[in-house]
Amino acid sequence: MKIDILSLFPEMFDGVLNTSILGKAAEKDAVSYSVTNFRDFTTNKHNKVDDYPFGGGAGMVLMPQPLFDAVDALRADDDTAPRIILTSPQGKPFKQEDAEMLSNEKRLIFICGHYEGFDERIPEHLVTDEYSIGDFVMTGGELAAMAMIDSIVRLLPGVLGNDTSAVTDSFSDGLLEHPHYTRPADFRGMKVPDLLLSGNHEKIAEWRWKESLRRTYERRPDLLNDRKMTEQELKWLRQFKRESGKE
Amino acid sequence: MKIDILSLFPEMFDGVLNTSILGKAAEKDAVSYSVTNFRDFTTNKHNKVDDYPFGGGAGMVLMPQPLFDAVDALRADDDTAPRIILTSPQGKPFKQEDAEMLSNEKRLIFICGHYEGFDERIPEHLVTDEYSIGDFVMTGGELAAMAMIDSIVRLLPGVLGNDTSAVTDSFSDGLLEHPHYTRPADFRGMKVPDLLLSGNHEKIAEWRWKESLRRTYERRPDLLNDRKMTEQELKWLRQFKRESGKE
Repeated sequence: MKIDILSLFPEMFDGVLNTSILGKAAEKDAVSYSVTNFRDFTTNKHNKVDDYPFGGGAGMVLMPQPLFDAVDALRADDDTAPRIILTSPQGKPFKQEDAEMLSNEKRLIFICGHYEGFDERIPEHLVTDEYSIGDFVMTGGELAAMAMIDSIVRLLPGVLGNDTSAVTDSFSDGLLEHPHYTRPADFRGMKVPDLLLSGNHEKIAEWRWKESLRRTYERRPDLLNDRKMTEQELKWLRQFKRESGKE
Repeated sequence: MKIDILSLFPEMFDGVLNTSILGKAAEKDAVSYSVTNFRDFTTNKHNKVDDYPFGGGAGMVLMPQPLFDAVDALRADDDTAPRIILTSPQGKPFKQEDAEMLSNEKRLIFICGHYEGFDERIPEHLVTDEYSIGDFVMTGGELAAMAMIDSIVRLLPGVLGNDTSAVTDSFSDGLLEHPHYTRPADFRGMKVPDLLLSGNHEKIAEWRWKESLRRTYERRPDLLNDRKMTEQELKWLRQFKRESGKE
């Protein structure tokens, strides 16, 4: 996969793209990154990328010209149709299924907005996908792009080692993960549940499934809305409701 | 505000904390950052931070000892009670209201998880707040912590200039932002709506309000669930529904 990033702050990406899984994925040639400052594509005298909004109001708006020209330059050597992704608070909430879908693409171009906003002709005529990573405001789209890139690249074939599995992660089965425990069994008087030390693998698997469901019920009941429950899960849910006094 | 970060990949933070608004906020002394590798606090021979999960299963789990000791060391010079925040997919979804609440704190300690997960005694006994930035899986908590830090720091007094306003942003009034347009009025044949060039400020304000509502209705109807609508908004919503053939 090739990932191109258009940003006014390319230096934000160095430490992230060279480190940990993102760096290893590039070493293994599973992905290559390019980061371009789209200010280099301005055609005005002062290299301005933004201007005041038509109709008045505070804040500056990114102009269409530098970004359209920067994307044209990136695509000059490429007759395929890459996905062009804009990170913005107005976008579709980015989910694991989007990471999975995008991990099948050959090329992704990320546009990182900054300042108050961007000219609407950018999302309307240049961009193929507009994503938000959450209902909170950041100063720019760089960190959102990095988060999306991380979640996509780790799904590429060969990127995660055998020790780490993309399949057993949170969200892949629609439930939050059950609690994990490791050594020591007693740390400052805080103890690991006895069952996990019992060696009874059947009971442990059942406990994990139940705790996964309990945690999802308590913290993210919205994730259960579309779930097809098993008989066992329905029974556990009735128990959780009784325990929490809701039934 | 003082922000301490505990991470196994401190080098990921350099480019981000020194750049743009996060860097300027530190220059203005509105915030100071420290990034600590909690591997330095391991007491075992090989500086291991993780171990196999009790009860079996794939993946490695972060041990409690290095993180408890690292937090103890950070708090040695401080008798206040800082918020201790863990970034995790099992956390509460991070929202703008959380950024606002946390921006009133004097000190925040962020713990960035990595690997398959962390020993449950960390969130249960060490951490005050467990947050997720979205329903997608990343290789570590670093990017989530950076995104949260960005959204918090930009709200600190004096950090945003007069040109940029924290108040008129997305989410602060519960609706997505209306489209913005700037120069040129005609770019490659793509034109700015005439109304925005008309100088009629009353009509422009009404258009922006309506488009803000339309966009929220089309893209994020969930944001409208708890909204107290005005008569005008209800009228517009009926129009949007008619236009989309839903009524």
